Amino acid sequence: MESHSDSWRQAKLRPVLRQLKPYVAGKGFGEISRKYGLKPETIVKLGSNENPYGPSPKVAQALASISPERYPEPEELIAGIAAYTGFPEEMIIIGAGMDGVMDTLTRLFLEKGDRTFIPTPTFSYYEILTITAGAIPNLAPRGPQFEIASRVPPDTKMAFLCSPNNPTGNVASEEEIAALLESTNSIVFLDEAYVEFADKSLIRLVERYDNLIVGRTLSKAFGLAGMRLGYAVAPRWIADQYRRAAPPFYGISCATVAAGVAALSDLPFMRLSVKKIISERQRLQMVVKAYPSQANFLYLETQQESREFVERFMARGIIIRDCRSFWGAGEHHARVTVGTPSENDRFLSAFQEICK
Amino acid sequence: MESHSDSWRQAKLRPVLRQLKPYVAGKGFGEISRKYGLKPETIVKLGSNENPYGPSPKVAQALASISPERYPEPEELIAGIAAYTGFPEEMIIIGAGMDGVMDTLTRLFLEKGDRTFIPTPTFSYYEILTITAGAIPNLAPRGPQFEIASRVPPDTKMAFLCSPNNPTGNVASEEEIAALLESTNSIVFLDEAYVEFADKSLIRLVERYDNLIVGRTLSKAFGLAGMRLGYAVAPRWIADQYRRAAPPFYGISCATVAAGVAALSDLPFMRLSVKKIISERQRLQMVVKAYPSQANFLYLETQQESREFVERFMARGIIIRDCRSFWGAGEHHARVTVGTPSENDRFLSAFQEICK
Repeated sequence: MESHSDSWRQAKLRPVLRQLKPYVAGKGFGEISRKYGLKPETIVKLGSNENPYGPSPKVAQALASISPERYPEPEELIAGIAAYTGFPEEMIIIGAGMDGVMDTLTRLFLEKGDRTFIPTPTFSYYEILTITAGAIPNLAPRGPQFEIASRVPPDTKMAFLCSPNNPTGNVASEEEIAALLESTNSIVFLDEAYVEFADKSLIRLVERYDNLIVGRTLSKAFGLAGMRLGYAVAPRWIADQYRRAAPPFYGISCATVAAGVAALSDLPFMRLSVKKIISERQRLQMVVKAYPSQANFLYLETQQESREFVERFMARGIIIRDCRSFWGAGEHHARVTVGTPSENDRFLSAFQEICK
Repeated sequence: MESHSDSWRQAKLRPVLRQLKPYVAGKGFGEISRKYGLKPETIVKLGSNENPYGPSPKVAQALASISPERYPEPEELIAGIAAYTGFPEEMIIIGAGMDGVMDTLTRLFLEKGDRTFIPTPTFSYYEILTITAGAIPNLAPRGPQFEIASRVPPDTKMAFLCSPNNPTGNVASEEEIAALLESTNSIVFLDEAYVEFADKSLIRLVERYDNLIVGRTLSKAFGLAGMRLGYAVAPRWIADQYRRAAPPFYGISCATVAAGVAALSDLPFMRLSVKKIISERQRLQMVVKAYPSQANFLYLETQQESREFVERFMARGIIIRDCRSFWGAGEHHARVTVGTPSENDRFLSAFQEICK
């Protein structure tokens, strides 16, 4: 049989796909190694806000005793997250990264034509999920300190806030978020992916507001980015619906369950790695003079265009993030993950060469 | 602040959620252990079509050398699947189990009000994804041998076929599927999760039909159910859109990438485990007299109600599957996974007690 025409194919696809800009992740070792002919082990990856100290050694032990042929049983993981956050298990929801958690949440709430509120620049996946659902993202520019500068419009179905904000690193105060919650009827998702690097979490607000969900991840402070494990604390009525609509086994593997349980059982390891990263963040900041950050990365303004700036680091085997893929960040911003002292030294010496 | 009323909450949720029956997985070790006070290690799990031989030992080696703190880089996995299937990498799409693959596919094609065609009884997730997308499932009863007994209606957007079919174990012939493809303009998804246990795959039909996608998984023959790794071979125009709309990193972890690469590098291990399972399937079949099966499970009619039948096995620590959650299977069918010889002996001795 002959193949179908392009117009036949276009008619089969959902029209929203034309609007969809695919998610852009930080560059990987493989890509940069191939592009610049560099050995992967010589590359310093400071582009994806990973934690160079990795997870607790208990994770490797746990991975050695999984049964990959058996479907995951996540009960123990949910219990571990409940203990870590101090919320009951019925309020804990899990997914394949915070991306996976948000994905199921948008399936609970977003219908075609609904509106979401997204203060920008921020993590781009909120907009992608909005468009995928057939809804309309309202991208509201943040103020000069990247604070949330506008009110949530009354017709908003979901608001996506991020604190510390990716890529700018600033936090929202409790007063600010509480005032926003008092002023809106929308479902508010507060992304606290980087909160362990900050002074304070706002997670307890979930006890007071039954339209607030606070998302978290084990990708950052716990050093498990590769395992794709996110969670959120949600009011019971939302968590109940989440469990009904989530993918089988929440889309996470038995390896991820085991790694998560193990990482959560060793909080001293996590806290020590956070302490080292905060100390290095301060050292980098003194040279780089980026915006204030309470995350494991710095957001900086570049003199030259960010595309070119970032390219010069890449050519030296140092991956940092060009922020042009963040809507509203413009053409002159880069994001640099705080690495180990030796990784940061490599970044700093390149920085001094490139910016002198 | 006070909490919102039930009617406020209901108005926030998508109306389709009310129609959604959550996915029902086979019972786990934990659940049955708690319910019957049995030690998990004494339980025989024949309810989830897992492969008791597990994956190649190379998988454990691969898991020991992952870097859980780094985001996944799936290139090598896609290359491995391309080599195994004999299709180019551009036609390979991957996801968190075949569930994850189908989830992204429904996001490419299904709009509110669209119709899907699902010959039943079959895997229940096709219906769940249809409803989640706001589309309408057309559940078409299969014939007496569980063959696809009706034509795909002209207004169908996607058709979901499964061969070998879960839970009935029968296969569709190449003539049957080719005739169906010639007769429809819909996107056809053919689920071949169990195909390594069957005489023949129809995957080469993707070369002839640009509306056909064939889904596969590493959960069954490759013994990686817990790792959640599915893939499909799709026409280029669909695969291109899939890559745009898929979740970050395809929703799979670096552990899953490593496990998949390792499992695909040891086909002799997989083939030997398939051979052992087929031989045990024949042995079980002689006693149980189930329907003919080309999968790693048997579908049997129960004299008593399936709920009660299955319960009597569970109480003896043998998990088998009550098929009432499969639409169209009625109240008198159970599904039994083919286990190891000793697991099957435990099943058979219970079967003789219960059915005498």
